[in-house]
Formats: sequence, C-alpha cells, structure tokens
Amino acid sequence: MPLHKQNNGKHIVNTIADWSDCAATLVDVATGRKPADTVVRNGRWVNVHSGEIIPNTDIAISCGRFAYVGPDASHAIGEDTVVIEANDRYLVPGLCDAHMHVESGMVTVTEFARAVIPHGTTSMFIDPHEIGNVLGLEGVRLMHDEAMTQPVNVFVQMPSCVPSAPGLEHAGAELGIDEVAAAMQWPNIVGLGEVMNFPGVSNNDPKMLGVIAATMKAGKTIGGHYASSDLGLPFHGYVAGGPADDHEGTQLEDAIARVRQGMRSMLRLGSAWYDVAPQIKAVTEHGLDPRYFILCTDDCHSGTLINDGHMNRVVRHAIAQGLKPITAIQMATLNTAEHFGMERELGSITPGRRADLIISSDLVQLPIELVVARGEVLAENGELTCDIPAASYPDSAKNTVKLGKTLEADDFMISAPEGAGKTVEARVIGVIENQAPTRALQKTLAVSEGQVQMDLTNDVCQIALVERHRATGEVVNGFVSGFGYNTPCAMASTVAHDSHHMIVVGTNQADMALAANRLGEVGGGVTLFADGKELAMVELSIAGLMSEERAEIVAAKAQQLVQAMLACGCSLNNAYMQHSLLALVVIPELRISDVGLIDVTTFSPVSLFVEDTH
Amino acid sequence: MPLHKQNNGKHIVNTIADWSDCAATLVDVATGRKPADTVVRNGRWVNVHSGEIIPNTDIAISCGRFAYVGPDASHAIGEDTVVIEANDRYLVPGLCDAHMHVESGMVTVTEFARAVIPHGTTSMFIDPHEIGNVLGLEGVRLMHDEAMTQPVNVFVQMPSCVPSAPGLEHAGAELGIDEVAAAMQWPNIVGLGEVMNFPGVSNNDPKMLGVIAATMKAGKTIGGHYASSDLGLPFHGYVAGGPADDHEGTQLEDAIARVRQGMRSMLRLGSAWYDVAPQIKAVTEHGLDPRYFILCTDDCHSGTLINDGHMNRVVRHAIAQGLKPITAIQMATLNTAEHFGMERELGSITPGRRADLIISSDLVQLPIELVVARGEVLAENGELTCDIPAASYPDSAKNTVKLGKTLEADDFMISAPEGAGKTVEARVIGVIENQAPTRALQKTLAVSEGQVQMDLTNDVCQIALVERHRATGEVVNGFVSGFGYNTPCAMASTVAHDSHHMIVVGTNQADMALAANRLGEVGGGVTLFADGKELAMVELSIAGLMSEERAEIVAAKAQQLVQAMLACGCSLNNAYMQHSLLALVVIPELRISDVGLIDVTTFSPVSLFVEDTH
Repeated sequence: MPLHKQNNGKHIVNTIADWSDCAATLVDVATGRKPADTVVRNGRWVNVHSGEIIPNTDIAISCGRFAYVGPDASHAIGEDTVVIEANDRYLVPGLCDAHMHVESGMVTVTEFARAVIPHGTTSMFIDPHEIGNVLGLEGVRLMHDEAMTQPVNVFVQMPSCVPSAPGLEHAGAELGIDEVAAAMQWPNIVGLGEVMNFPGVSNNDPKMLGVIAATMKAGKTIGGHYASSDLGLPFHGYVAGGPADDHEGTQLEDAIARVRQGMRSMLRLGSAWYDVAPQIKAVTEHGLDPRYFILCTDDCHSGTLINDGHMNRVVRHAIAQGLKPITAIQMATLNTAEHFGMERELGSITPGRRADLIISSDLVQLPIELVVARGEVLAENGELTCDIPAASYPDSAKNTVKLGKTLEADDFMISAPEGAGKTVEARVIGVIENQAPTRALQKTLAVSEGQVQMDLTNDVCQIALVERHRATGEVVNGFVSGFGYNTPCAMASTVAHDSHHMIVVGTNQADMALAANRLGEVGGGVTLFADGKELAMVELSIAGLMSEERAEIVAAKAQQLVQAMLACGCSLNNAYMQHSLLALVVIPELRISDVGLIDVTTFSPVSLFVEDTH
Repeated sequence: MPLHKQNNGKHIVNTIADWSDCAATLVDVATGRKPADTVVRNGRWVNVHSGEIIPNTDIAISCGRFAYVGPDASHAIGEDTVVIEANDRYLVPGLCDAHMHVESGMVTVTEFARAVIPHGTTSMFIDPHEIGNVLGLEGVRLMHDEAMTQPVNVFVQMPSCVPSAPGLEHAGAELGIDEVAAAMQWPNIVGLGEVMNFPGVSNNDPKMLGVIAATMKAGKTIGGHYASSDLGLPFHGYVAGGPADDHEGTQLEDAIARVRQGMRSMLRLGSAWYDVAPQIKAVTEHGLDPRYFILCTDDCHSGTLINDGHMNRVVRHAIAQGLKPITAIQMATLNTAEHFGMERELGSITPGRRADLIISSDLVQLPIELVVARGEVLAENGELTCDIPAASYPDSAKNTVKLGKTLEADDFMISAPEGAGKTVEARVIGVIENQAPTRALQKTLAVSEGQVQMDLTNDVCQIALVERHRATGEVVNGFVSGFGYNTPCAMASTVAHDSHHMIVVGTNQADMALAANRLGEVGGGVTLFADGKELAMVELSIAGLMSEERAEIVAAKAQQLVQAMLACGCSLNNAYMQHSLLALVVIPELRISDVGLIDVTTFSPVSLFVEDTH
C-alpha cells in the first residue's frame, strides 16, 4: 500500500479521460469489481449539493475521477491502491476561481498554477485579455495551449474587448467577431471574457452584440463587466444584451441587482479588490439565495499568491464576513461549475467528477493540508509535491516594447497652456485606496518658466503614457494623486491595462526617462528609479506582461519593488496594481491612454487643463 | 392600447428567435428606444434566482422574450404595446415538468399541451419511450416533431431502454446505441430518457454504457431511473455510470442519497405517484439545500389533467408539505432549467429568457389566472384563449394491434399443473395502492376440472398479457390481486408499460376475450366489458397509446372508464394506471410480460405455480 508521498518529484501530466470513456471502470470501482487508484479514508464530506457535512466518508478515485463516495470504500482498496488517511478532517472540493487574469501575477500560466495549487485552487477560468491586447489572437492561443498542459483545470475565456475601448485607445492588436467565433471552436475555450464595453452593449454596438452572439451560438458562457453604479436603464440594457455574470459590483445593491436579473454575481477579492465584504451582505443580511453568488479573484499579484493565498483567502474572507462555511465553499466550487455548465465535470466530490479535493482540518481558517487534483496529490502543507516544468514561449511573444527612440527628460515636461498665469487648473487622476475606480480631481498647480509643476506636498506627481506597440515615440503626459511619492523617483511599467502601453509615474522627469528607456532595453517589465539609480526591476519578457521566471523569483523581485515604492513614500496597499490600472479606460472616472486623458464617465477625451474646455 | 384578450381564437405558432438573434431588440426595449410587444404592470416578482418576492415590478416583453424586469416599464409602452395589469398579483415563472410521458395522458403532445397550459405548465421534458416501444425511432421522431410545433416548450428525451428489459420482454421495436447517437443530433433532443435498466448500468452492460456515452459526448443530460431501495453498492455503481437525475425515489433516504451523490432528485406527483411528501422532508425536516430537488409528474392521465391540474398541483402539494412557496416554485422552474443547461433560456422571469409566466393571486393555492408563454397570452382563468389545431399522425402510426387470431375464452383458461390436487399455490401480482411497485404474493387457489380458479372473495382475479406486435397469438396468463373486481367483467388495454402488448384483467374468461378482440378491432385503446357488454371504450389509435381526439373528449371517455371500473367493484385511486403498469418489468416485485411472469427483484422469469420451482 504505497504512501501518497509517491508524487514527490513526479511530473504530473495533463491527461484526464472523459467520464464517458472511463465510466465502465468507475462503475467497476464503485461496485468493488476493480481496485481504485486512490482511496481517501474517513473524512468529513463537505457536500456542496446537499449543503451538509457528512462524517465518516470514504472516497475511491480512478482514472482521475471520483468513482465512489460513501461510508466505506474498503471494497475498492487493492494491492496498489494509494490510501490517504483523512483522519476525520474535512474533504473539500478543489476551489475554483471563476474569473481571473493570469497576467496579473506577472507569471506564466504554469507558474500561476504552481503558486496557487498549494492554496487549494484546482480550477481556474482565465481571461487572457492582457496578452490579447499586446499579441492578439496568437497571444491568446499561446496561453490557451499552455493552460491545457497543467495538472489542474485551467479553462480560457476568449477576450471580448480588444481593444477595451475602441477610439479611446490603440492596443497592440484587435480582436473582432471573426476571431471570437473562431476561438469558440478551440478545445479549451469555455466562454467569452468580460464584456467591458458596457456602454457599447446597451447602445447596441454591433461588435459587442456580435461577439456575444458568436458565444451564444456556441453554447458558451458570456462574462460580464458592468463597471458603473447606474442600476437604471443602461444596466437593464446591458443585462438584456446577454452577459451572464458580473464581477465589477462593489456595493450591496450591485450584487442584489445582478442576481435579481438572473446574472451570477461574482464577488471579488483580488490583491487590490475588496468587493466581497460589502456585497456578501446580500446573503448574510438580506437573505438572498446564495446559489447565484460566486467568488473570484480577478487579479492577484504574485506577492498575494505567495504570502496570502488565492481562492482559500477569498473563501476564508467570505466566512469571516459571517457566511456559513458550506455556503462560502459552494460559491467557490459548485456555483462556479454550474455557471460554466460544468457541474457534471467538477466542483463537487461526487462520482464521475474530476477528483479535485482538499483535505483541511478546519473549515473556518481553511488550512490547505493536502491538495489532490485529478486524483493525484499535488501539494501538502503548502508545498508542491510534484514537478511542473516551466513553460517556454516563442520569440514572437517577446521583445514587444517598441519605443521608437530614446526618451529624454524633456519628453515628460508639461508646458503650461498659452497665456497661463502663475497657476493652472489641471485635471488630476485620483487614485482610490483598495478600489479600481479613480476620481477625476482638479488641482491648482504652479507654473514656472512655462512648465506646469508637480505639487508633491499635496501628493500630485506626474504620469505619462508611453506608446510602445508601434514605435511612434509618443508620450502623453498628465498628473496623478494618491501614491504619496515624496522623493525623486519614477516607476515605469509595461503592464498598463488594458492596451498595455507603458505607464510612468514619477516625481522628476529625468528618472521617468531613465525608467522608460530601461524597460525598452529589457523588453518590458516594471522598474523603479530613484535619483538616477535602479532600485527594483521585474523583467516581464513575455509580451511585456509576464516573466519567464519561476513564480517565487518573480514574487521576490516584486517584493523588492514594493519595498522600493515604500522607500519612495508610496503607502498604498497595492501601489503596483493601482499604477498598472491608470490607463484602464473602461472604469471611471479619469484615466490616461495613448489618445490622451479620458473621462470614463462620458467615454470621451478631455483636456489636461480645465481652462482649455471653455 | 389593445387588451390582452387579443389572443382569443388566435393560433399561436411555434416561433421564437434565439436570444442572440433578437438581443439588439431586447436591448432597445430595455433601454426605451423601442416599444415592447407586451408590458405586464405592477406585479409581485417571484424571483427564483434571488429567492425573493419583489413587489411593484413591471415586465417588458419583446420577440417572445423578457426584455426588461424592474420597477417601471413605462418607457417600453408604445401605441401597439399590449398592457396587462397584474394588480399586485404574483408573477410566477411558467412551470416546468422535468420528466413526463405524454402517452400517459392518452393524447397527442398537442392535446397534452392544450390540457396543461391552463394549469400554468409552459415547459415539458418528455420521454416518448412508450411510442418508441411500439414504433421505434420513427415513433420517437413523430412526437419530437410534434413537440416542436407547440406554443409552449416541449423538449424531448431520447428513450434509452427500448425494450426496457431485454430478455424479459419483446417490444415492438428496439433502439440501440446508433439510434441514440443519431437522435442526439435532432434539434429538439435535450438528453437521454430515464435509464431504467439500472442493474445493467451497475453491471457494465455495454448497451447501457453506450447510450450514456453517446449522450455525454453530445453534452446532454442523462435521465435516471433507479427503482430499488438498495442504496448500497449497486446504487453507487449506477451513479458512477452517469445518470444525472432520478425520479424513482419513494422514501426520504432515497432523496437524500441521490442529492448527496450529485444527482438531482426529482420528486414525483403523478396521477398514481405520491412520492413528494415522504421525500421533501429531506428539505423541510433535514435542512438539505433545495437546489438539487426538482418536481415532476412522470405520468398523468387525462382525468388528473382536466380535474386536478398538472405542475400547479405538484407545486401546491409540495407547499402543503411545509415547503416555502418560493422554494417549491424554484423546484418547478429554475432547478429544472439548470438541470437541462437551460437557465439562460427559461425557468425565470429575467431578461433574455423565454417570456413564460403565470399571474396568480396566491402563492399557496396557486390559482392560475393568466398564462403567458413566449410572450403570448395562452390561457386565462383555466381556459385556453388561443387556438391550437389538432395534430395528425400518419397511417404508419396506426393499426398497431396485431393479434393474429380471434381470441376465445379458452385462451384465458389456466390449467392446473400436472398432478395438482384441489388447490395450488400460485404466484399473484399484488397491486399496491398509490405506488408503482407491486408485491409478489402467493395465494392458495382452488382447482376445478383441471382449471385453476380465481378467488374473487379474496380479490384474486386473472391477468393476461396478449402479444400484439407480431401477431403471434400468444397469451400469457396469471393472477392479480388488489383491483377489487367483484362482478363478471374484464378490462383490456394496449397501454401496457413498457413494451405495450395488451393487458387484460378480468373475472371471467369470456369477457376477457371480448375485450381483447374489441381492441384488436379499433386499433388499440382501453375497454371494459361486463357480462358481455361494453361499458367503456377509449380508442387509442396512435400506436395503441394515444387518442386522436381532443383532450377533453378523451378525459370524458376515461372518466366513463373509471366509473365502469368502479361499478365493477374496483376501488383503487388510479385503477387504470395500475392496470397499465402490470407489465412494467423494471419495477419490483412481480410483473407479467410476453415471456411469462417476471420476478423483478432478481430480473428473471418465474413460474406461475410455486410447486414448479421445486
């Protein structure tokens, strides 16, 4: 009777037979005619179908699927059966992340999987729209194919909005109705990625309705993204257009409205999103049926993954808000599986489903003591017990940072408007702690020698968007408030949602130029310069978005970046992520793009100086 | 502003655009750019997603789908918009019957729909396995095609077990893996009909696993039928084989076991099935999550439909057991839709779904005051308000009763076994009131002039199965107890689940022969003869199963049949249905088939006389 430690160092490959192809074996194992590959003995079955916790439960696994779940699987134990003693601990279905972007972890799909498997995540529904914005359909296909090689389930949503906001930005590629229709035939596509152009849907934009129709015709799930607090007619129009879920709600009434309309409300706890607590009150205070609520992360950076966890962190957090543990677990397992039409394939510990499970001694803190995916032990006590080789990407996915010239400090100077006095009224992007939306601020800034000055004492520094897809050499300059930088420094990043040009935020133009040029040299990444010196660098050679290195190395470099930002006065919880979202021209209120400053309440460009508009 | 009475006499045709094809219109209506076809004003929204009742709700309908559901749809009212005043009544999603056999109503799909629409049923998932047993794939296709012409949603499950019990009976046709695989491509097939050969599944019968695999490959739902109280390894084997639901549970523990295993437990209230009350305690007493529970009827005869209702009767009954109304309604709407992967298409009053709804002034008694399907008013206060033309069936579906000869009283004489004394020990089929299973009784019967005698004082009369598919002229004779017949009479029926030969139950052989021959003359049906006189006749010319007449006429004739049975001493609640199930060799304990008496605990033929087995 071999120990389950057998997977130490073993490379788990991605093969799982269809239920229909192994049903005869499962039946034989269930009835005692054949031994199981693995038996888990004496656990407390967290049953997400019945909502019960059922003690004294045994599990028999074969072909990577559950064959038997019941009071006694001794009939399924043969000579070669691996036996795992649960010792009365909880048997929890492997956790599912219903909507997330791997690129936010700055690592490959493989490294993301390596990072989250020890946290109990065994299914991810990923939307590779970041790489889609840089590399187009080829980039999506690269991640789609990489996803299929994982020892856990990684399903892909086809990006719906590349570029996210046509006319308000120019991405590295465009994906249209034809590309979406083609991708729906790929083997690992489960649906359409978040439909971010929500005004487009409620205004009958033909491309938006076209990509939705292509997905409906393929019988797949349409991801939503309604990033507005207006729950009136534009919201109703969006719902009528077809998106089946939404994870952009931030308030109680958002969650209630979505579920009432038959959408699944995805409650998000990412590295920088804290949307579970206010919205879960729909269940804990208002008594809504929890079945249409789903937990997800959307975006996690590597530090969160390494230090805090992944979906286990979200479930734990939801429970801490007063949700019953079984309900929180349903929201990260069965509810998600049902949403994607996969409840016969995963999301519960029941016969036929993929044998994805966690063993944990406590349902409240949810320590992840053993992780089994497709019947294989992949992690124990927070450590991987299997080998997952690093992925490699082709050269066509690299060297994507095309600046067209060496940038100078002058490129970041902001001239005062014609006829300006000693001060000007400027629009300033206001970062909001722990939230994706920004505020459209207006600040009075000094003018000196024709140049508009930053106001560090009031936390106003500069932001620049540097075009990097077509080597135009263009730089769009503006102001930002909220980072707290108070020393000479500049941070640059080629992660700049969603079109992923380069965003540079700095307190002096020389450092801004240095940082930008440095990213051009290394092919993309994130760097922080202080007074001419490089304090941190995370190289992201794949599309300027993802590292080729192991997750733990990336996390260490990212940690160094966080320290460097802190040293420069930045006190935001997730400063790097806030930085990378400043060009996200689909979430209100004020953003920057290669087109200029964008008012995301009216979806139109606005001038940097308020006087200009008169 | 036309009244909704406009549908009086209108023929509602079966056309509904895909959501994807009318999304632009729905968005326009939702946002006020186009008027709705119909607006329902000021109702109490029974929201099956959130589990709430939301007052002051308006609904806008366009293209047969809900476009807007919210506090105020006045923006969607145009000159030609039909406005329905809900006057603070409940807006309930149209009810779904998750598993049923139209043939049990002895009428066509069309007539069944006409009968149940006024009761608020707007979606039916039908398994035409009765006609499949008589006419094979052609018969299934006839009903499949008829289903598509209805003004309500009628989806078809492809029969999985024709014959139901190979080797234990010979049906009129056989359907194999190839036929199932082919049917999965038909436009209106939603899954596989109940897999009744449950021992076959847990014993890895290749045909059973083959039809399941063909359905899984097609991504459709596999109906179950586990008609055994054994919840041990045979049950676990059945679950591992793939059936996704089961409606054969009768006890509390049956329902609990199925849901725990990730099957949907369908609780059945048919004309003769009373399985909701004992099983719903899983929710009302044991607190199981209700989401995996579904209500259905399985079999309703026309009298039930005309007098008592359909799914409204089941929902009302479930509520009377102490279930919250919203939960009972979920079990007849959203839960069903989810099971068949159709929650984006029907089962709730939310945008994009088919506009199927009921208006009712009370959620407990659930009076069906208005029925809207696909946006059209079809019934009001129990009366159809639209015309639904009768269906016609081709000649190939008729004249299916082939007796091969004129039967004589002698054909029904039962000779005593060689060497018998004054009495013999005979096996007797024991009918159980209100249940599908029978008891395997043994009775001591008198022998007179070499013939075994009935014992009417102890309620033992004769049963015969008359072969009618291949004109062999064969008659299998036996005894039955429980009907209570106490006068000279015989009832014959060509509805004889599942192979649908002819069952004759009688107290004298002359009437048995008369009744059988009469059905041969009319091409099938049910008739009752008393002392040489025909007391009742329901002609069932389509496959010997269904009438060509209107539902109300069939119901009247069936009512006459019930009266005639009562006059002959039969006091069972659903005597006709009990009669027609006596050849159902997949439900224990003792049945009759063209092969002989069948022990359905061991699935093997047994002799009529107990001595024979020694």
